[in-house]
Formats: sequence, C-alpha cells, structure tokens
Amino acid sequence: MFNKFCKKQLWECSKDLSAVAIGKTPAETVIKNAKLINVCTKEIIENTDVAIHSGRIALVGDASHCIGDNTNVIDANGMYIAPGMLDGHIHIESSMLSAREYARSVIPHGTTGIYYDPHEICNVLGFKGVEIMIKDAEKTPLKAMLTLPSCVPAVPGFEDNGATITSEDIREQMKLSEVVGLGEMMNFPGIQLSNDETHAITGETLKADKIVTGHYSIPETASGLNSYIAAGIRCCHESTRAEDALEKMRLGMYAMLREGSAWHDLKEVSKAVTQNEIDSRYAVLISDDTHPHTLIENGHLDHIVRRAIEEGVDPVTAVQMVTINCAQCFHMDNEIGSITPSKCADIIFIDNLENFNIKKVMIDGEMVAENGKMLCTFPESTYPEYSMNTMHVGEKITADTFKIKTDKKDKVTVRAIEIIPARVGDYERHITLDVKNGCIESDIKQDVLKTFVFERHNNTGKHGVGFVKGFNIKCGAMASTVAHDAHNLLVIGTNDQDMALAANTLIECGGGMCAVCDGKVLGCVELPLAGLMNTKSAEEMSQKVENLDKAWKKIGCDIVSPFMTMALIPLACLPELRLTNRGLVDCTTFNFADLEVE
Amino acid sequence: MFNKFCKKQLWECSKDLSAVAIGKTPAETVIKNAKLINVCTKEIIENTDVAIHSGRIALVGDASHCIGDNTNVIDANGMYIAPGMLDGHIHIESSMLSAREYARSVIPHGTTGIYYDPHEICNVLGFKGVEIMIKDAEKTPLKAMLTLPSCVPAVPGFEDNGATITSEDIREQMKLSEVVGLGEMMNFPGIQLSNDETHAITGETLKADKIVTGHYSIPETASGLNSYIAAGIRCCHESTRAEDALEKMRLGMYAMLREGSAWHDLKEVSKAVTQNEIDSRYAVLISDDTHPHTLIENGHLDHIVRRAIEEGVDPVTAVQMVTINCAQCFHMDNEIGSITPSKCADIIFIDNLENFNIKKVMIDGEMVAENGKMLCTFPESTYPEYSMNTMHVGEKITADTFKIKTDKKDKVTVRAIEIIPARVGDYERHITLDVKNGCIESDIKQDVLKTFVFERHNNTGKHGVGFVKGFNIKCGAMASTVAHDAHNLLVIGTNDQDMALAANTLIECGGGMCAVCDGKVLGCVELPLAGLMNTKSAEEMSQKVENLDKAWKKIGCDIVSPFMTMALIPLACLPELRLTNRGLVDCTTFNFADLEVE
Repeated sequence: MFNKFCKKQLWECSKDLSAVAIGKTPAETVIKNAKLINVCTKEIIENTDVAIHSGRIALVGDASHCIGDNTNVIDANGMYIAPGMLDGHIHIESSMLSAREYARSVIPHGTTGIYYDPHEICNVLGFKGVEIMIKDAEKTPLKAMLTLPSCVPAVPGFEDNGATITSEDIREQMKLSEVVGLGEMMNFPGIQLSNDETHAITGETLKADKIVTGHYSIPETASGLNSYIAAGIRCCHESTRAEDALEKMRLGMYAMLREGSAWHDLKEVSKAVTQNEIDSRYAVLISDDTHPHTLIENGHLDHIVRRAIEEGVDPVTAVQMVTINCAQCFHMDNEIGSITPSKCADIIFIDNLENFNIKKVMIDGEMVAENGKMLCTFPESTYPEYSMNTMHVGEKITADTFKIKTDKKDKVTVRAIEIIPARVGDYERHITLDVKNGCIESDIKQDVLKTFVFERHNNTGKHGVGFVKGFNIKCGAMASTVAHDAHNLLVIGTNDQDMALAANTLIECGGGMCAVCDGKVLGCVELPLAGLMNTKSAEEMSQKVENLDKAWKKIGCDIVSPFMTMALIPLACLPELRLTNRGLVDCTTFNFADLEVE
Repeated sequence: MFNKFCKKQLWECSKDLSAVAIGKTPAETVIKNAKLINVCTKEIIENTDVAIHSGRIALVGDASHCIGDNTNVIDANGMYIAPGMLDGHIHIESSMLSAREYARSVIPHGTTGIYYDPHEICNVLGFKGVEIMIKDAEKTPLKAMLTLPSCVPAVPGFEDNGATITSEDIREQMKLSEVVGLGEMMNFPGIQLSNDETHAITGETLKADKIVTGHYSIPETASGLNSYIAAGIRCCHESTRAEDALEKMRLGMYAMLREGSAWHDLKEVSKAVTQNEIDSRYAVLISDDTHPHTLIENGHLDHIVRRAIEEGVDPVTAVQMVTINCAQCFHMDNEIGSITPSKCADIIFIDNLENFNIKKVMIDGEMVAENGKMLCTFPESTYPEYSMNTMHVGEKITADTFKIKTDKKDKVTVRAIEIIPARVGDYERHITLDVKNGCIESDIKQDVLKTFVFERHNNTGKHGVGFVKGFNIKCGAMASTVAHDAHNLLVIGTNDQDMALAANTLIECGGGMCAVCDGKVLGCVELPLAGLMNTKSAEEMSQKVENLDKAWKKIGCDIVSPFMTMALIPLACLPELRLTNRGLVDCTTFNFADLEVE
C-alpha cells in the first residue's frame, strides 16, 4: 500500500539493502557521527552512522564497512538526527498554498510526511478538486498521504456546497493507492445516532483496511465519546482540555494535540502527558491548519515540537509524537517514523534539543533541504480552468442586499455568535440591538456586526443572515471565501456599502479574503484556486496576508489570525452557534435557529 | 483482514455498538466494578465497567445506562480485568496436542489469541498439514492467527523432509484470510547473502502487506543483524542475551522475549527492559514451544507474565507485552490487544497482580473459561488418514544398523554435539573415543552417545550419524520423531540393540517419543498425528509425558524437558553443530562436517 510514497518498494530492494548492511555492496550514502534520537526505545544514541541505499535505510550503527569509493559520506559532526517528521492531520488549503508550494515551505522545517484531508477543495470541486491536490503533491518529495474527505457537505441539510460525497464514492476512492484512510469524521451525531450513511462511510474505510480519523470537538468523555470511538474511529485532534486528550488515549484513541496558527491548544492539552505518568504512545502532535505567515515565521512541526518542549514535554518524547506514534496510528511504522533498517531514509538533522533548529532534511535518501531552503526544484504545475473559476454567486449584491428587516420597533434581541480567539469553539449570546427604519443594524459599541453567508457554487442565490461578536472592528467590512466547510462567501461588516464592496471584490478576483473601509479596498489576498488557494510561494502569500493583517488592524480587528477564526463561523459541526448560507444553526441540538430571540 | 477471527466485522455492527454506548440500545453484557489494566496509557483505572455487544466492546467507563432487562451483568467485584493475552510466536506442535486440544488448554490461562507457525506439520505434510491445523483451530474460540512456514525445509540441501515451500507457494497462500504473516524466517544466511528465493519469500509477504516474523539466533547485533532487519523482518524471539534484545528494539525490531518449556530466556533477556530506562513498546513476551506438562502445571502466558514480574518487570508493563505491544507488532491493534471501544471483547479477569491467577476468560463477549476450566465444548475433529500414517522409513532397522565403522585403531577423535540444557544453542566438542572391533562406540563415562537420524518421509533409506554429549543416560536408548524441523526419526543410545528397539517402537506406533532399556520399552508417548501430535487431551498427554519422564530418569537423564533439547539436535539453523539425516552440519559455516576429526 505504500507504493506511492517511497522511491522503491522494499521487496524490490531488500536484497540490495541486506548486501549493503553486511558490507558486500557499498552504500550510496552514509551519514557518519550523528547523535541518533531513537524513537523506538526513547533514547539518544551517540556516535551513530546510517547507511542508505535505494532510498532506504540499510544499517544503523557503525557503517564504516558500508563506505565505498562512490559512497556519498555526510559527516553529521555530532548533530542530532531524527526520523523525518509526520503531521498526522492537516488541511493544505488552510495555508492558502497549492500542495506544491505547501511542500516547498514545510520540508525545510523537517516535515517529510503529511496526512492531509483535502476537504476544503472537495467541498468546492468534489473529487476533481482532490485529484488536483494529488497531482500537485506528487511533483514534490513530500510524502502526501491522503485521507478522503468524509463529510462533504459537513453537516448535510444545513448548508449548500459544491459537492456531495457518498459512501459509494468512499468505497470507490478507497481503491486509490494514495488513500491511507478517511478524513476527519466530523459528523459525530451521525455516528452516535447510528445513521446508516455515516456508518457506511466509516464502514467502507474499515472494509478497505484503512484508518478512520476523527473529530470529536465537544468536552465530553463518557457515553458520547465511547459511542463515537466504538465505530472504529482511531484518532482525534479536537481536544482542547487535557482531560479530554487523556480520556481519548485511555480509550485507545490517538490524541492528536494541535498547535495550529489560530488554535493554540498545546498549552492546555500537553498537560495530558506532562501532568500524568502515562505511556504517551497514543499522543501525536499535529497542526491541522497553518497559515502562510506561521510557516514562514515559526515553521511547521519543528515549531510545534519546540512548543511541546516549552510546555515541559521531554524532547525525545516530543519527537516520538511526530514520528513513531503517528506512523503507528496509521499502521505505517513498517515504512516510516523511525531510523531503523528497511525504512524510508527520511532523516532530519537538528542542531540541539533546546532550539530544535532543522539544519538538513533528507527524503528517500536524497538531501532535499538545508538551512531552511529547498535544495531541489519541482516540475511546474498547471491547474484546470474549472478550478480557477469557482465564484458562482446567484444574485447581484448591493448595499440593499444587507438590510435586515424586523417587525420589532425600537429594540430587538438577536442570537449572536461570539467568537473565542485562538479556539475553534464559540458561544451563543443573546444581545439587544437598536432598530432603525425597520431594520436591525450592526452595533459597533457592543461589537456586534452583521454577518452574511452567500452560496457561491451553484448560483442558487441563497444567503444566511446573522450577527457576530468579538472581532472588534470599528469601521468597514471584511469578507472571505475561506468559510468552512462549504466555503461560501462570508461577509462581516459595520455598514452595508462596505459589505457590498467586500463581497464584490472577492467575486471579481475569483475568491480570497479582503478588508475594506469607506469604499476602499484596504487589503486583499486573492485565492483563485477554488477560492481557497493561490499558486504563489509561501513568502509571497505571507506578505499578502501581512498586508491584509494591517488592513484588518486598520479597521480595528485585534485578534490573532482573524481570518482563521472568521472562517469557522459557518462550520455547523462545531459548538455552539453557527451561520451558513441557509441560516443560523444551533450546533448543540442541530436545528436551525431564528435570528430574533422571542 | 480480520474476518476469520471475530464474531462480527466492525462494519457490520458499528451502528449497534454506537447505539449501546450512547444508551439507546441495551448492551448484551456489562462487566461492572472492575479494576481496568489500561494497556494504552499504562495505568490501572478503578471502578470501570465494560459494555459489550456483538462480541465487541461498546463502552469502557460507567456503563449503568447500558443495562437493560436482558443484559447479562457480570460483577467483577473489584477484580482486575485485562485484554485477552496474545502469544506472538508459538508452534502448537510442540505441545504434542492437536490445535483443538491446545486451544482447550491455553484459553483457561487467559490466552485468547496466538500467532502460530505450523512449520513442524508443514515439514511432514506440506500445506495439507497446515490445512489440518486451520480446520482444527477453527472449531475453537481461540483466535489462531497463522504465520506461514517460511523455511521448509529449514536448511535446504542439508536434510530431507516431507515438503518444500517455495516463494510461489507463499504468494498463493498469502491470499488466505487466516494468514497474517510469514513464520519465522530462520534462513538468516539466505537473507544476508541476498539469496533470490529467500528474499522472494519475504518479498511476497511484504507485497501482501503482511508481517514478516524473524529468527535471528546468533549473538551478533552489528552488520549481520542490520542486514537481516533491512529485509523488512519485524520481530525476533531468539535473543538469549539482554544486549541482543535491547539492540533489536533499538533497530525497530520487536524483541519477543521467550519463556518456553525448554528454553528459559526470560531471566536474562528481561534485563533489556528492567536494567535500561527505555520505552518498552517493542518488547513482547512469547512461549515459542511449550510442552503439555508445562501447560498443565504452570500455565501459558499467565505463567510467563508471572515470570516477568518475578524478574522485576512492572506488572502493567508485563501485561502490555502480551497485549497491545504484540497487537501493534502485527498491525492488529485496531481489533485486539486493548479493552477499548470497537475492539473484540476478549477480556480476562485476574485475582491480583502478585499471583496473576486467571479467574475468568471472555472471548468475543462470551465467557469461555472460569477457574481454569473451559465452559464450552468444541465440535469433534477428524483427521485424514494420510496425516495419521507418516512413518515412511526406507530401511529395516536392526542392531547392526547402528554400527559406526572406522579405519582408526584404538582411539578416534570425533565431533560431538554438546547440548546446553534449557537453551537452544549447542557446542561442537572434539572428544576421543575407544574403537572396538573396528567400530566407534558410545562412551557412558564421558557421556558421549551414538546418535542417528533416519529419513522417514519418502522411504529414501538415508540416515546420518553422530555423537551427542550432555544427556547423561547410563543405559538403554531414546528416540523421537519430533526432531526439528524435518522431523525425521532421531535415536540416541548406549547400545545398538536398545537403539533398534527404540526406533522400531516409534515406527510401529506412528511416531512419538520413547525410552527403552535392556530390551524393554520403559515409556512411550505416541504421536500419531504427523508423528508430532496426539489428539488426546493435555491432561492425558501430560500424564504420558510424565511417565516417559520417569523412564528417562530411570536410564539416567536428569535435564529438564530432555525431549525438547533432544529435538533440536537436527536443527541446522542453530549454532554450532547439528546432525541431520544427511550427516553432521557445521552451522556456523553451513558445511557438512566429518564425524572424525583429522
């Protein structure tokens, strides 16, 4: 099943590897004099060599006898070496980068494998979008292991998106060799309520002997969590409390501890490991969503390992959490996740365990990055026209579109969504607003703003209306087509004119994110690939986002990565209240909710 | 791939399990008030309930809400519960019991799953013999997971046996759903020397995405061991030194620490875990070969866990070594090896962690044993005629057959095999013997005895001649058709008449083991099923072996389980000197050796 991800199948080169290890044939490459971070036994082994052939590890120990005239000898000079790091759960789309550019930005940070769930592009373009990701990733040395989007749309019946994935689709697509499992099963109510189609989707994955990955986002660890895990769901990255992560591990579920750009769970959830004397084999570190600025400024898994160490996790334990633990979760420890004979020669060189700077990165025996830069280039990618033209909004949007009429006279109490910066959850708040000329208006003083979600896939002309609290903007408006998971057009604003400008700016540029004020576009990040990604480099995208960040600040928004928090407003599988293009959704009972409170 | 081993596929019952856990449907069975040995986190969790449905675990925690009118409630009364124990490497044939009777004897000791390599019967009957084992095991609740014999014959060219298994056979048989991997790859020279056929056998296993199990019996951990592991060999049960077991784990190989009836490795190899501060996830406890008396007197994995605890292994760590660690080795931790939702409800009840007595055993949600006794019966087995009639010795054996002629006059120096009681290795010794009437004779004073191996599969009439030291018998002779791995007819004796009697006794009864003296049969264990097993119960077989043990003692043999040590005399893949039906084999250079030393 590993054929897509290694240079040579083990059965094609085992004779060569055995011959190299025994000293009969020289190795292609030998790393000498390294401090091995042994993730199998949780030890550091000094003065270790590694002999490499056919992209795989032939020997670990003393490799003097493996060196021939043509062997490429790399002196590690006492540097630490560790297995290439694995991100057990990520969405490439969150980086706003194409898979190709994403790979270019994370490999120098020591990431050699990812388990990605392309459910964002799948919501826009269906499997045609997933194929774009596969083909793009294949051009790079990154091992891009696909988990098939399981919940497209995320919460059926509550939103309109660009595609529907059925259990039959899953059965068919599980045959692809790139597919190693099912992406996060967000529909935990469907699992708990024994919904036929939901269990058919997980069931088709189990039949294919692949891994069902999870998403259990509520702080509950009793009957509900058990009911969810009982369906064979093997991991979950949604714990925000240490006790939830601990309980998941106790129930045999891999607890994927998240440190993304917008959700900083690690400070809290790392306590599951640091404050309990437990076997940590079921703990994994993952990023979930990382924005380009974070990739450029902080890095990727190297940053997350540093953060774990800061939180008191033993460094070797932290390395296990991005290598062997993750590989075991996916039943791939026979191929990746440790520096041991027969495995793919995915090896990172680290300066020391305090700074955890990645100095060199080897994938399949080739040195691919050094000192933060890629050493190789990738073939060019082209993207089909349908993927670069996905704004299909079925109504002409003007300032009038944003009027919210009411029968109430002076005051009206509305349900508002209060965001929690750096967390995925939100609160439902009931807030009283003024009525002017029969319409409900945004209230800047209370920080309660009009919010609209426009369907953008099939020209249906449907839109949902609500209010949001917590962004603190004082003027203008902001909009985004990155709006989980249907990725409709989301607009938040202080006044109707600017809201219309923000919406139309994105319709014109093919999708993206923007901030406007007083009739001017202050900043715009164009995301023409499915309205989610740009094909430019991480550096360029980081710069664009930084400019947009300034624009957000200009209109008063002071939270970290506001667009990531904003993008979750329509995600009706997270508690408590969300807004989709069909209206407000009470995500604890899964019912539509009225805007006005009786 | 698990369909043969569970009551219901997870995808067939996940809806039911989720419904039970959430409290919508009552559980079939609830275990209340247990102390859970949590092998995932290495903790003991007090006051734990387990809800069970469709043979699987639905919930772990508080199961009050899962109890309905028809729920079978089992009060654990504060007893410990642990996952059913798994033996990662065993040969059923060593117990002399049929698979059916083996299951009956080990289940009450808490064994719920075995990874068995039926290479003994395969050497006699080929895959027809393996099929007998599969069909027999299927009649029992024991999860009998098959690893296909990889080395039949064990050391090609050095012995004659009843079948030859090729890589094409392996490719074909890997399709069987009972097969989870390849049995111990004993031909480590073939791996190290990049032999095509040897690598094809491991390669076909890798292609089938199944597990290659190992056998690396020499005390070497550098280029040779690396060369062996580089071929994708995942585990090895042959360490006899702690440093070998440790190094295997460091190289990502599961170190299966053995405590069999005849080889007591644990005292030494457990130090790998107790004297090093390492992550022990790569350590597994296994039995390899257990004789019926041990099963009756000491037990099976319960005994081995007790032994590990005696040697200073933390009890919960020891339980991990027979549950989750083993399941992870075989990539089956999604189905067995922990008490967590979705897994097969294979659960053992233990009185306390000091005595580790198994009080109850549940498999697939059914209580199958209690207080050391099976609660259920198995359907009867019948065995085909060809499997009950396997003594095909192509020569008439008389006292004259055992004359060993020499050209030397008074004295001759011979190569003798010196056994090491309770270990699998032996030594080559050069010993000077008297010559009488042109023949070399056994020397009771020096404890050096004539040893013959007769081919018994194809009437070839070939036999090999040597001497053995260490059994200490003073009169008579002993014989066995359990003689690894070709299972030819092995005879050791002090005089030619008794040797002939011993040989003919076994030929007449269809194979087995016997001890004779002065023309009388003192004891005989008949093994008519392939000359390896009897279809009687463990109790009866234990009694028979005990009687034979007395007979051995009567002729002077004082070592523990002499027949198991004896049975290794022909096994030419173990160091240093062995005797097959083709002659003496130097097992360090893999050459035939002359009986007489120049």
